Amino acid sequence: MMRLYDYWRSSAAYRVRIALNLKGLKPETAAVDLRRNGGEQHGAAFAAVNPQKLVPALDDSGQVLTQSLAIIEYLDETYPQPPLLPGTAHDRARIRAMALTVAADIHPIQNLRVLKYLQQHHGASEAQTQAWARHWISLGFEALEGLVQRAPQHGPYCYGNSVTLADIALVPQMANARRFGCDVSVFPRLVAVDAALCALPAFSKAAPENQPGAS
Amino acid sequence: MMRLYDYWRSSAAYRVRIALNLKGLKPETAAVDLRRNGGEQHGAAFAAVNPQKLVPALDDSGQVLTQSLAIIEYLDETYPQPPLLPGTAHDRARIRAMALTVAADIHPIQNLRVLKYLQQHHGASEAQTQAWARHWISLGFEALEGLVQRAPQHGPYCYGNSVTLADIALVPQMANARRFGCDVSVFPRLVAVDAALCALPAFSKAAPENQPGAS
Repeated sequence: MMRLYDYWRSSAAYRVRIALNLKGLKPETAAVDLRRNGGEQHGAAFAAVNPQKLVPALDDSGQVLTQSLAIIEYLDETYPQPPLLPGTAHDRARIRAMALTVAADIHPIQNLRVLKYLQQHHGASEAQTQAWARHWISLGFEALEGLVQRAPQHGPYCYGNSVTLADIALVPQMANARRFGCDVSVFPRLVAVDAALCALPAFSKAAPENQPGAS
Repeated sequence: MMRLYDYWRSSAAYRVRIALNLKGLKPETAAVDLRRNGGEQHGAAFAAVNPQKLVPALDDSGQVLTQSLAIIEYLDETYPQPPLLPGTAHDRARIRAMALTVAADIHPIQNLRVLKYLQQHHGASEAQTQAWARHWISLGFEALEGLVQRAPQHGPYCYGNSVTLADIALVPQMANARRFGCDVSVFPRLVAVDAALCALPAFSKAAPENQPGAS
């Protein structure tokens, strides 16, 4: 039995949904609504599943795994086809670096809990938190655009002709970039790759607006 | 030829130094001083090496790799002994989740560039930026303490009896926690693991205060 603790609006959960679709896996899902009752993830029931109180979490036969990139690496090791980290050790290092540019250097700084803290403890206005998000997204996308342009393998995706972990990180972050009003036209490779990816069923089915409960 | 672009004070570079020591590798090092001239990493010379302008970067025979966790996974694939991600796919998922709890959920939010931005754009005082850092470190360490306590393998380290990627992430973050004045006594497992790790030569040789140029 496999169960995904999911929230339609979470970028990290969105990554795991894409990976599950690419692997052809269809786990049960349990929705954890981060906005209801001050955040259901702070409740005792979910804390027992994931002490870090963050979605996503994947329960695989009673083993609860956390952290989206760790979950996706696990899925890739356990269900090797199609490979999300193909190629040589060098290739994998570049793919992981792209994914981490999003998952470590952009997303954590612009996610909901940080923006809330900025408002509550530093008196930031809605406009100021949006500017904060745009700043960190643009800085990270500038780096990622460079990594994708310099990739030794060229193709429709971040790293050549096959969909990789880097692509899984890009698409949810591009959606956030647009939501915060970033001018993404200055990242032409990322925009083109994102468009190619969003046309794939594994990505479109995982999109926030296509999840039950989306509003 | 292997060359590490390093900065003694960088937590991410510190992680890579530990991994290199554990693998018995001794690359050339090039110091990039993040504090000199408004940050040497913004200069054209280093931007040519790493467009993201962040240390560390590892040049392995002309292939430049970035992002500390991606570099360490690369080293672990290329030099398998001792393994930094031992065990089963489940074990590796838990070890990676611990490492990402630091590298994605704590460190990016408390690093120097974010604290500077908070001061410059949100008028935060020195005391307020320190409180910001303590908040995110404590929140993440609370989660990490839970993950380490619940690990199926117990031993002196984060995950059982061998040093893993999780340990490499912990030690630099614990040093930051103390520097920002966090009360780390509320994380007894993390404090004990950190003490065990700091006694190992691979960790002590990598410590910021033992690097050339440290001040």
